[in-house]
Amino acid sequence: MEHDVPTGRYVAFEGIEGAGKSTVADRVAGVLEDRGHRVVRVREPGGTAVGEHIREILLGGDHHLLPMTEAVLFAAARAQLVSETVQPALETGAWVLSDRSAYSSLAYQAGGRGLDTAQIRTLNDIAIGGTWPDRVILLRTEPTTGLARQSVGDRIGDERLAFHEAVAAAFDRFAALEPDRFSVIDASLPLDTVVSHTVQALRIGR
Amino acid sequence: MEHDVPTGRYVAFEGIEGAGKSTVADRVAGVLEDRGHRVVRVREPGGTAVGEHIREILLGGDHHLLPMTEAVLFAAARAQLVSETVQPALETGAWVLSDRSAYSSLAYQAGGRGLDTAQIRTLNDIAIGGTWPDRVILLRTEPTTGLARQSVGDRIGDERLAFHEAVAAAFDRFAALEPDRFSVIDASLPLDTVVSHTVQALRIGR
Repeated sequence: MEHDVPTGRYVAFEGIEGAGKSTVADRVAGVLEDRGHRVVRVREPGGTAVGEHIREILLGGDHHLLPMTEAVLFAAARAQLVSETVQPALETGAWVLSDRSAYSSLAYQAGGRGLDTAQIRTLNDIAIGGTWPDRVILLRTEPTTGLARQSVGDRIGDERLAFHEAVAAAFDRFAALEPDRFSVIDASLPLDTVVSHTVQALRIGR
Repeated sequence: MEHDVPTGRYVAFEGIEGAGKSTVADRVAGVLEDRGHRVVRVREPGGTAVGEHIREILLGGDHHLLPMTEAVLFAAARAQLVSETVQPALETGAWVLSDRSAYSSLAYQAGGRGLDTAQIRTLNDIAIGGTWPDRVILLRTEPTTGLARQSVGDRIGDERLAFHEAVAAAFDRFAALEPDRFSVIDASLPLDTVVSHTVQALRIGR
């Protein structure tokens, strides 16, 4: 289906583990497609051949991975994904729906691990060449609820509750600081309601 | 052997492929040890368990690795190496002799691949927490000579001659800009002479 003007937007679904990011993003992708938009779905870390290799290092449990190394590795996977997939898709007018984005690094590596927020922002800004998400859907849930929902454990998901609470608090701060970019959605509501609220927040059109 | 004051210094051996970095660094390590200094030898990329995994991604030929991804991956391996090995060794007063350093990223990813030098400098400065080499031994050789000497090919070593000429020119520029940090050694001379010039340049003492 043709559009007069490319309407592509880069939308990141953010939130702690178990918030429902993939499920909601998939459902929103369906709504977009029903309305005639092209959608590219990506996930972080990974989403490219190189990124999947990096993902293995990041989520595997057998490394003594220092916080800064972790932050830089996430940025590397993101650099590849944004240049290889996100930017080309946006240029053709597609919507890019991403599980996570550079904001996850700000929340996890700065908020959660205690690295300097400004440094992590600069690091990612260089890596992604300034291509930050146009919109961030923050799926907000309590860490205890989110962790209970989580189906598969990994090196980061297995962190203690206090870590995930710090991450959740960081997401809340970013949303408060950038209200035009963030939409905060109550992810504890029924899925249909969460999807509906997200679609409204995105003002998809058509 | 005890010293009154830690004398550890972080010395990077830099230059294009085939300049003799490993060989000269090994010989200089021997001289240092003969004079009673403790020496830690490291190499980039790699040098840690995580770094060796990253090295496989970087030097393997089967990826479509974009220039910025490559730069960020090198920075990730370096972040781990500097925090895990270099900084602790320096704190005990050891000399750290490294095949390559962040200056290689400036030469290869900025000078060779055309990425922005200031961005690559910032990226690395964040990754290594400001721990730049105290001294850089630039082993200078002509790209045609260096490439002929190179024994094992890899994804970066196999680049065309013009790439290695751009890298060599970048190293020369950095040496000119930071004369207190860089010593330029003519690596086309016999090995004993190269080692002797390097030892003199380092003013090792004892």
